[in-house]
Amino acid sequence: MRKLEFDFATAGVDVLLVQTLPNIRYLTGFTGSNAGCLVTSDGETTLFTDPRYTTQASQEFAGGDTRIITKHRMMSLAAVEHLGKRRSVRIGYDPAATTVAELRRIEAKLPARSSLVEIEGAVEKQRQVKDESELALIRESVRTNSAAFDAVVRKIKPGMRESDVAAELEFQQRKKGASSPAFDTIVASGPRTALPHAHPTEARLDPNILVLIDMGASRGGYASDMTRMLHLGRPSAKVRGWYDAVLEAQLAALDSIRAGVTAGSVDRAAREVLKAKGFAELFTHSTGHGLGLEIHEMPGIRSKDKTRLRAGMAITVEPGIYIPGEGGIRIEDTVVVTQNGCEILTPTTKEFVSI
Amino acid sequence: MRKLEFDFATAGVDVLLVQTLPNIRYLTGFTGSNAGCLVTSDGETTLFTDPRYTTQASQEFAGGDTRIITKHRMMSLAAVEHLGKRRSVRIGYDPAATTVAELRRIEAKLPARSSLVEIEGAVEKQRQVKDESELALIRESVRTNSAAFDAVVRKIKPGMRESDVAAELEFQQRKKGASSPAFDTIVASGPRTALPHAHPTEARLDPNILVLIDMGASRGGYASDMTRMLHLGRPSAKVRGWYDAVLEAQLAALDSIRAGVTAGSVDRAAREVLKAKGFAELFTHSTGHGLGLEIHEMPGIRSKDKTRLRAGMAITVEPGIYIPGEGGIRIEDTVVVTQNGCEILTPTTKEFVSI
Repeated sequence: MRKLEFDFATAGVDVLLVQTLPNIRYLTGFTGSNAGCLVTSDGETTLFTDPRYTTQASQEFAGGDTRIITKHRMMSLAAVEHLGKRRSVRIGYDPAATTVAELRRIEAKLPARSSLVEIEGAVEKQRQVKDESELALIRESVRTNSAAFDAVVRKIKPGMRESDVAAELEFQQRKKGASSPAFDTIVASGPRTALPHAHPTEARLDPNILVLIDMGASRGGYASDMTRMLHLGRPSAKVRGWYDAVLEAQLAALDSIRAGVTAGSVDRAAREVLKAKGFAELFTHSTGHGLGLEIHEMPGIRSKDKTRLRAGMAITVEPGIYIPGEGGIRIEDTVVVTQNGCEILTPTTKEFVSI
Repeated sequence: MRKLEFDFATAGVDVLLVQTLPNIRYLTGFTGSNAGCLVTSDGETTLFTDPRYTTQASQEFAGGDTRIITKHRMMSLAAVEHLGKRRSVRIGYDPAATTVAELRRIEAKLPARSSLVEIEGAVEKQRQVKDESELALIRESVRTNSAAFDAVVRKIKPGMRESDVAAELEFQQRKKGASSPAFDTIVASGPRTALPHAHPTEARLDPNILVLIDMGASRGGYASDMTRMLHLGRPSAKVRGWYDAVLEAQLAALDSIRAGVTAGSVDRAAREVLKAKGFAELFTHSTGHGLGLEIHEMPGIRSKDKTRLRAGMAITVEPGIYIPGEGGIRIEDTVVVTQNGCEILTPTTKEFVSI
């Protein structure tokens, strides 16, 4: 069980309703697919789930206060109903994690004289800075992921299907200790590398072709995220030029990271390199994102994000350029922000590998 | 592109905001991770996504009207902003698919004299009954899944880890054409079979033990879902008794299915068998669920669901019993409702396999 760092008094609430599964896992360790949670200002944490998870909850949230709800399946509602016996209570809830339909049902069951207070992202903000046990899991996840990549990359050859490569990568992730991929593995070849989020197809790899692999492992609940480029045969000067530009942008972004700078400034560091080379328009996404129990967490490493980076934040750095109909390049590491820079967790080489 | 069957006039709306990714995929074919969609009463369909998906949208929603939004990432908001030029419009939106925070932003940008009308589950209702092209994909998904199971089951032996079995199953799913598992593969052994939704662990299979495998493939976007039990060594009379009871319940539920009966009546058919054997309290979940583009769709095969089954609905039938600390049994097929019964798609034997 993890302590919630939240100033109840300043926020004007007596109890916080925790609704999303990653937030609930973070606080209680519970990994089931249906749960709600209440945390009171004096730190009492109550977990709500359904009968499928009776045993699992007692193991994962051992010693914690768990209520098994049979009446309905909406655990945020169960949590609010549970407060019914209290005289009056100010309940913090997250409007970004609550559907309109859910809010209606909660309002209908709200104990008399109680009130709802909007509190956005309280747990997510705490989750941005990882503690030592979380960093240990992210390191393991990164190592698992890179080990899987290494085991497969030497076997890639013309004639294999993109989907075969994805199957091998995910199998090796599992064999090396991942519970699952952290997201749908991307294997794109040739002109399909111009699709930033391509699903692997049955297309067979041509003998002379660019290959983009974007993969992450989930281990102990924590994500890793890495993108690497390969080339079957020797790349043309043009493709080599794309690669060098993106690598320079990625290194510039990495170099700009340290505690105290804004997320936006890291994005700009990458973007300026690509702009100087005439590729500004081709860099169609942000430079990265936080990751942890979810593959996308705060902060976003994007131009408008003013979050000041803090030591212990785990983020990706992944600039890319995409030339429709021709191809694309992305290079991505998982890193941890430190006081004076960052620690690049991803051990995989960023040489442009020709195979 | 698929035609939305929705009575705009009766619902009192001019345009429907379609927000969830499976609904958008269903109508447009688009498979990206960020999208919004508008459908007008005269059938005009507009897709909204961000620049990562420019090329992919033009391929998947070929010939469709796609808008690439760079201003922000909230595509439901982009869709409503797009209506700004119209004089007045009644916009249907789904309160169960809209967060409170999202609704606030939409309301702030709502064109003058326009209004929001709550329309819950319009596309989900249509999606319950599968058309021929969907049934073809579900059949393929089921075949892929069972072929993967067959390829692995004969190799399972004492000493393997649960996670090794899961890795092999998912690898074979991929090799046989799945794009991914449809959900986290469950491999539970011994007393852990009493956890209905167990994650595979590093635990090694004992020589004389019950094993539960719950797996599904995703193929062409469509899910399959199957649970089978194995026993390493010969099961005890007690475990055999559990198995026979659950199988009888499953067959009774299958036997009760035909167009016109309620989902609840199928649940009761399974529950009555288990009740007669004294296992009522151990059957802690519902009998099944619809499946398709999502692993859990309407209808729920649960006691209180009054939905009348219709020919073409794809559902799971999966009663189970769970004895904490001892073990559990679940048997599950994917079936399609027909006029006079159901077609059991899952070809895998339901004999209690000892290996």
